[in-house]
Amino acid sequence: MRAAALLSLEANVDLVVVGDEPAVSSRLAELEHNPERIAVHHASQVVAMGDNPAAALERKPDSSLAVAARLLGEGVGEALVTAGNTEALLLACRRHLALLPGVSRPALAAVYPTQIRRGVKHDPFSLILDVGATLDVSADDLVTFAVMGSSYARVISRTPRPRVALLSNGAEPERGLPAIVEAHRRLTRIPGIEFIGNIEGLDIPRGTADVVVTGGFVGNVVLKMLEGVAEAVLDLAKYAQKERVKWRAGLFMLSSGIDKIKQLTDWEQYGGAPILGFEKPVIKAHARSRERAIVNAGKVAAKAVASRFDENIRAHLPTGT
Amino acid sequence: MRAAALLSLEANVDLVVVGDEPAVSSRLAELEHNPERIAVHHASQVVAMGDNPAAALERKPDSSLAVAARLLGEGVGEALVTAGNTEALLLACRRHLALLPGVSRPALAAVYPTQIRRGVKHDPFSLILDVGATLDVSADDLVTFAVMGSSYARVISRTPRPRVALLSNGAEPERGLPAIVEAHRRLTRIPGIEFIGNIEGLDIPRGTADVVVTGGFVGNVVLKMLEGVAEAVLDLAKYAQKERVKWRAGLFMLSSGIDKIKQLTDWEQYGGAPILGFEKPVIKAHARSRERAIVNAGKVAAKAVASRFDENIRAHLPTGT
Repeated sequence: MRAAALLSLEANVDLVVVGDEPAVSSRLAELEHNPERIAVHHASQVVAMGDNPAAALERKPDSSLAVAARLLGEGVGEALVTAGNTEALLLACRRHLALLPGVSRPALAAVYPTQIRRGVKHDPFSLILDVGATLDVSADDLVTFAVMGSSYARVISRTPRPRVALLSNGAEPERGLPAIVEAHRRLTRIPGIEFIGNIEGLDIPRGTADVVVTGGFVGNVVLKMLEGVAEAVLDLAKYAQKERVKWRAGLFMLSSGIDKIKQLTDWEQYGGAPILGFEKPVIKAHARSRERAIVNAGKVAAKAVASRFDENIRAHLPTGT
Repeated sequence: MRAAALLSLEANVDLVVVGDEPAVSSRLAELEHNPERIAVHHASQVVAMGDNPAAALERKPDSSLAVAARLLGEGVGEALVTAGNTEALLLACRRHLALLPGVSRPALAAVYPTQIRRGVKHDPFSLILDVGATLDVSADDLVTFAVMGSSYARVISRTPRPRVALLSNGAEPERGLPAIVEAHRRLTRIPGIEFIGNIEGLDIPRGTADVVVTGGFVGNVVLKMLEGVAEAVLDLAKYAQKERVKWRAGLFMLSSGIDKIKQLTDWEQYGGAPILGFEKPVIKAHARSRERAIVNAGKVAAKAVASRFDENIRAHLPTGT
């Protein structure tokens, strides 16, 4: 609620808060907010993080998540922001929202920190998709994901010509699973996107590409691995800080560096992961988000709507190759 | 050659060095070695690292790699060690060596460093397979890889009950691509291996499992990503060391820590990556290996032969499920 209150003051957007009306309204009354910008829509149920997504949607038709997706599909609102159960969100979107013409399956994208670069690319972040919406992908899906990721990076991250790459087990065009080889062939022929070919696992932390395109299974493993690596580095530092004097002195000096790593792995500042492919922008904030992350996600959603991001995707999708 | 010379002195093994006979012999003459332990088998050609593997094997039938695999298949020698072109090696093995009964496709395994553990597991390494031999895997392949990885960890790494896990996009048994779900079901029923279920990307650097089982495409991406992350950490440290006085002081203090990271990511000490599934052990040393790595790879091969590692695998493979 603090996020909604802040957004109503900071951003030029109208908000519909979906949730338990009495609770939402009484909480809002305690917070500084712009009442002209916030409407509340009642939903009596909630999908919990641990719920089985399909069963929960079936059992809880009036959950805030299902209601929000339905409202969006009915034309109430231009974008959806939530920190809820990702899979339930995907299912609710599939049920209530249309896919963009030419898109068969949606993709969940995520932003991750890359090796700090001081050259062409000042932004130390790259986008990776899909990270779990579509586990097993066809060549069609990969091409669509490349186009959508490129549009998102261009519009939201303000990278004028985002470098788009396919993740494979070798740089050569003939390397990879058949769908990747075929997608590679097609992407070289699509105008308007900066396709740099295949990259390998080595290139993910390097930040060789601005947009890394892969299937949802591989993307999920990669994204969680990046979280795990960050955790391992921080844990090593914490251990050293506690255990050894020599290390402690070193770490005190290095504290600005550790802070930098923390910052890079901090979900707060990313502003959420977009679900791409539906007719309207859907932004999934991390489940551990606090208000700042939700506010950022709201701003990203507003930017996506204002920039007609969906039309940008439609303009670049190949029309039958 | 220095590696072969050292092995002839240090290990209780007979070596057949396959390569250009005049060059090998004259180099050997310069090195301290045990002539009773080393025979030289002439091969007039070489597969280069950049060669197209299939074309090179076709064009160079007398390459050292092809000749060594053929000799092994013919019964000359009990194991093969090389630092050559991995894919050409796999093709040569497929051509000249039989697979173990019950094994349909081979796996390339790799050892990687995990978060340092001070509990049950003192060894900060885990094994991951497949990392590139079989890109797209069936449930059968995954079960076979689990059994082979478990045997290798037990025999070579001396982990009495290696914890074996399937890499997936969630811990629940029903998560993952269909082959993974099916392999999970079967692995719970195989006696003699410590199957701990699915792990996620997060668990890879943590070292939750001693043996991580996945398909060759995903494993290849994961392994190269680990290399990339290590590179990024070292690069950040180097940059800081050069650029900033405060950082420099900190890094001097931390130098033992950095050394530890270097050591963990140093191929020299691993002793090579096994190709599992053939009737005889094949150890692929990293292409950048120097003599110590080759010597270690030779010792691993000797250990695999002495422990009847292949029989250990055969004893645990399910007979038709």
